[in-house]
Amino acid sequence: MGRASKGRATSPDTPCIILVRPQLGENIGMAARAMLNCGLSRLRLVAPRDGWPNDKAQRAASGADIVLEETVVFDSVAEAVADLEHVVGTSARNRELSQRIVTARHAAREMHDWIDRGVGVGILFGPERTGLTNDDMVHADTALSIPLNPQFSSLNIAQAVLLVAYEWAMATAETPAERMSDYAIRPATKDEMQNLFDHLERALDQSGFLRNKAAKPAMVQNLRAFLQRATMTEQEVRTFHGVIKYLGKGKHSEE
Amino acid sequence: MGRASKGRATSPDTPCIILVRPQLGENIGMAARAMLNCGLSRLRLVAPRDGWPNDKAQRAASGADIVLEETVVFDSVAEAVADLEHVVGTSARNRELSQRIVTARHAAREMHDWIDRGVGVGILFGPERTGLTNDDMVHADTALSIPLNPQFSSLNIAQAVLLVAYEWAMATAETPAERMSDYAIRPATKDEMQNLFDHLERALDQSGFLRNKAAKPAMVQNLRAFLQRATMTEQEVRTFHGVIKYLGKGKHSEE
Repeated sequence: MGRASKGRATSPDTPCIILVRPQLGENIGMAARAMLNCGLSRLRLVAPRDGWPNDKAQRAASGADIVLEETVVFDSVAEAVADLEHVVGTSARNRELSQRIVTARHAAREMHDWIDRGVGVGILFGPERTGLTNDDMVHADTALSIPLNPQFSSLNIAQAVLLVAYEWAMATAETPAERMSDYAIRPATKDEMQNLFDHLERALDQSGFLRNKAAKPAMVQNLRAFLQRATMTEQEVRTFHGVIKYLGKGKHSEE
Repeated sequence: MGRASKGRATSPDTPCIILVRPQLGENIGMAARAMLNCGLSRLRLVAPRDGWPNDKAQRAASGADIVLEETVVFDSVAEAVADLEHVVGTSARNRELSQRIVTARHAAREMHDWIDRGVGVGILFGPERTGLTNDDMVHADTALSIPLNPQFSSLNIAQAVLLVAYEWAMATAETPAERMSDYAIRPATKDEMQNLFDHLERALDQSGFLRNKAAKPAMVQNLRAFLQRATMTEQEVRTFHGVIKYLGKGKHSEE
């Protein structure tokens, strides 16, 4: 009997990952690593083939020791889910059960909703090769299926854990879809940009590049549009002033 | 010089995955497997440490042979991206480059847009431990950062490839977020449900369970609501008729 069956052993604010009859220690370790990357740390094992603890799991966890130290082992799926209120079963194939099937992305949103309401949530992953049996799946309220290449669907267990845990993390992630790197000091002001355009235009005038008076306005506009589109930083504007100055000098020395 | 520099070696309708100076064959194989799971098959390698082909990569690919057979090897990042128009560089850390940074999800949508317009797209992944250098990153138009646990960010290269390839696959996936398993014959008609409620109510009346006349309406309503919520199939309705009948018989035989 696992420790958790004596009461909730860990914080209920994230889902438990429950590996059912896992075979290879490496996969348990890789799953732990994938979990911690995604902010999950509650790992439960049902009847791991090679017992527990497992040296190979330790090595493959690459530093996700906290997950392995708090891992709880159970004899059966029934015991592993006993203290949970909502259970999701991952399944690659259709089975002879009439069950609701959701994508990993949809499951992540639902699990967040459950947990926000104080419900204990667990996600079952089956053993390598065979996956969860129907007897395992009847413990699940919902089936989770990751819809990938129908011609080649061979995620290993740690990869499946990674994708499900990743969707969990993304469902609350506040990272903007697009941003500039922190190093990007500050964008140049429009005044600084105008000075740069003026400098460039003068230099090109002097170099003879803008000799064709008719073509000049369009050419200047195109250059401005291009430099504007790059959203330059003030550092880059300064660098570019130097480039113009240096190239102008080079031109003179060649003459 | 790689084969691809003599012209486009493979179909341009999916992004190339470009592993830069990969060290372990296992990781190359796992990356190939992750790719094929997500419908990607164009793999390019820049200066793989242990040469190419690589037996360990073969074994770790678990059947994703088609990806390894068509893998093209280059000496430099410049050569590997020469025939591409848009390059994304994956990067775990901030660097001293002023670059646009997008999430994997946002990058997937952008890459689909580029490819729909006939643009050749590649995604750079750096070597184990060090990741891409600044010299590698300057070949990229956009940086891609996977925003996970800031306290433990240690995706291995195959895991990073999996997440990026997964987002690529999800960006066009047409799988409904929620559905019923194919086995779910057909939902019961309302008429079949009504028959079931009637049968159940009769049986409970006979059993004495609904003896309390005042409580009866609410009790019947609650039972109906619960059975209704389960969206039963006609098969399940038939099974349940059997259950009611059998339980009714058992009751009589006990008397």
